Amino acid sequence: SRSINLAVIPGDGIGREVVAQGLKVLNAVLPQDVKLETKEYDLGAQRWHRTGETLPDAELEALKGHDAILLGAIGDPSVPSGVLERGLLLKLRFAFDHFINLRPSKLFPNTETPLAGRPDIDFVVVREGTEGPYTGNGGSLRTGTEHEVATEVSLNTAFGVERVVRDAFERAAARPRKKLTLVHKNNVLVYAGHLWKNTFDKVAAEYPQVTTDYLHVDAATIFFVTQPERFDVIVTDNLFGDILTDLAAAVSGGIGLAASGNINPTGAFPSMFEPVHGSAPDIAGQGKADPTATILSVALLLRHLGYEAQAVRIEEAVSADLAEREGTARSTDEIGDALAVRVAG
Amino acid sequence: SRSINLAVIPGDGIGREVVAQGLKVLNAVLPQDVKLETKEYDLGAQRWHRTGETLPDAELEALKGHDAILLGAIGDPSVPSGVLERGLLLKLRFAFDHFINLRPSKLFPNTETPLAGRPDIDFVVVREGTEGPYTGNGGSLRTGTEHEVATEVSLNTAFGVERVVRDAFERAAARPRKKLTLVHKNNVLVYAGHLWKNTFDKVAAEYPQVTTDYLHVDAATIFFVTQPERFDVIVTDNLFGDILTDLAAAVSGGIGLAASGNINPTGAFPSMFEPVHGSAPDIAGQGKADPTATILSVALLLRHLGYEAQAVRIEEAVSADLAEREGTARSTDEIGDALAVRVAG
Ligand SMILES: CC(C)[C@H](C(=O)O)[C@@H](O)C(=O)O
Ligand SMILES: CC(C)[C@H](C(=O)O)[C@@H](O)C(=O)O
Repeated sequence: SRSINLAVIPGDGIGREVVAQGLKVLNAVLPQDVKLETKEYDLGAQRWHRTGETLPDAELEALKGHDAILLGAIGDPSVPSGVLERGLLLKLRFAFDHFINLRPSKLFPNTETPLAGRPDIDFVVVREGTEGPYTGNGGSLRTGTEHEVATEVSLNTAFGVERVVRDAFERAAARPRKKLTLVHKNNVLVYAGHLWKNTFDKVAAEYPQVTTDYLHVDAATIFFVTQPERFDVIVTDNLFGDILTDLAAAVSGGIGLAASGNINPTGAFPSMFEPVHGSAPDIAGQGKADPTATILSVALLLRHLGYEAQAVRIEEAVSADLAEREGTARSTDEIGDALAVRVAG
Repeated sequence: SRSINLAVIPGDGIGREVVAQGLKVLNAVLPQDVKLETKEYDLGAQRWHRTGETLPDAELEALKGHDAILLGAIGDPSVPSGVLERGLLLKLRFAFDHFINLRPSKLFPNTETPLAGRPDIDFVVVREGTEGPYTGNGGSLRTGTEHEVATEVSLNTAFGVERVVRDAFERAAARPRKKLTLVHKNNVLVYAGHLWKNTFDKVAAEYPQVTTDYLHVDAATIFFVTQPERFDVIVTDNLFGDILTDLAAAVSGGIGLAASGNINPTGAFPSMFEPVHGSAPDIAGQGKADPTATILSVALLLRHLGYEAQAVRIEEAVSADLAEREGTARSTDEIGDALAVRVAG
């Protein structure tokens, strides 16, 4: 008999509320014979205030034993900026070598978009997750004086770039439109840019069926709002991917619908699934948060673990739910309930 | 009697066409007693193909003697990416210490925006122009092998950050809404982020009349499309400013209208004014390019040189021209002519 041994990190703010709905839908969609075990990890702002810890070694070690991780949201204004992001969220992404940060964008029917004319949006960003300016490789000299110098180093390796580029080509080849766009800024960041572009061109030769394109990151933001339908799969570095996927979420239904997976395709470590949105402390505990992004992240989790039919079931339920919903605002719970009923039905 | 000694760098692609219209309008708007002298510099792709030079020392030296520089566009697919950008455009910005890269965004009447509901957009981005990831401070090791490591270093100094932050506070204080938003990514880029945030907070204490705000760059892109009216003045680093100003152009009338100034407020070196758009080789020489961005850059140039009334005259002419234009597409020349007539009238 099959089983899923899931680690759950509700985290901060609305994290707990949305994760509860994600688990509700996961329970409803799983076949009877699949045993779901969950273990909750108390990590985030409260833990840090209580103990000063962000992610102790023992918990990092324990997390390794799970099949996957479901994370709600991390971050609180009471904690200095960067402490939880670097000490917990990014620590997990780096420790578990989540080199694929997968972020699909789809404009579902009957959802909000700031774009006139509701363009046909259906693309996925493959964001590198373990390199670039996110490595924490920087410093400051004469800190706090008028002579301070602060640096941030973007680290890019042939190994790291090639594996994410290959993954993106595989994903593009498996999609109907088979189109892959590399986004970088190789006219200014020439060293990293050349590594990315050369690697991209080299791997492209192995995928003649995939149409390729290159855009500078600044130009890409223009097309995100004027012509988002031109994109199918996008591959880009950690920082550009961070920026582009928030913009992608904004134009395709809002941050309440944007799912993500921090994936290690080798299976050496558990992959981690989380909504793109933050902890939204201003609406926490009020039942106002939209759990759909978390529920769609559960779909990515199921796909990663081989439950493709169940993943599709969730995605179709979300699509139908959005199409049929009425004008009135629903609570976090109500949305979770509605989706749980649909996937079980 | 007064005079302007202007350097003109038409550059590549549509650069020559749009610069011609900029000069036409400049000539039309200047008071009779102001003597305009222009000297053209042959720099860009053709020069590089002919001589291998991007910006020789003699020309850099000669450019120093001008009151200002008007630049069309730089870049051509026949030149390896980065050669002209780094060797010419960025070389000028760095050599002349253009630490203020000023990029206003305003949604004029009767213009295109991909945003539903035509929000009220009227903000200005003060982009740092001489530091950050643009310093060329990176490298690559074992280049071209499977063991390649490529780096890009973002350099940030207290001196460099404080001067641009002060400039932005001055600009915000002089505007009706008096609001300044710092954009960075200080939860990940903690060293540079802290320098920017601490400097911002320190200077803010001297401007109690200015309302301040902080946004991560990813969140800022969301507000650019969902709530652009929330912005008044934005201050940010070189790379974030590059990305955000293309997005700003896209939502506020398109890249055909986006002007910019690379300003050295000390006057130690000539400031340089250029449209935000690129050289658009696909439409070069066809009279299809919109010269309005260049003409609005001429307005910024005039303002910088103290001709405020003339700057306003151009901006009002553009606004009236856009409001009254009809559906039919006009050529580069026709737009230039129409604006020249208006500013002279
Ligand atoms: C919270 C922050 C560290 C994180 C990131 O920058 O990756 C977030 O913005 C995201 O996109 O998941
Ligand atoms: C051409 C390129 C070097 C330049 C930049 O990145 O600054 C351009 O994108 C701009 O915004 O002026």
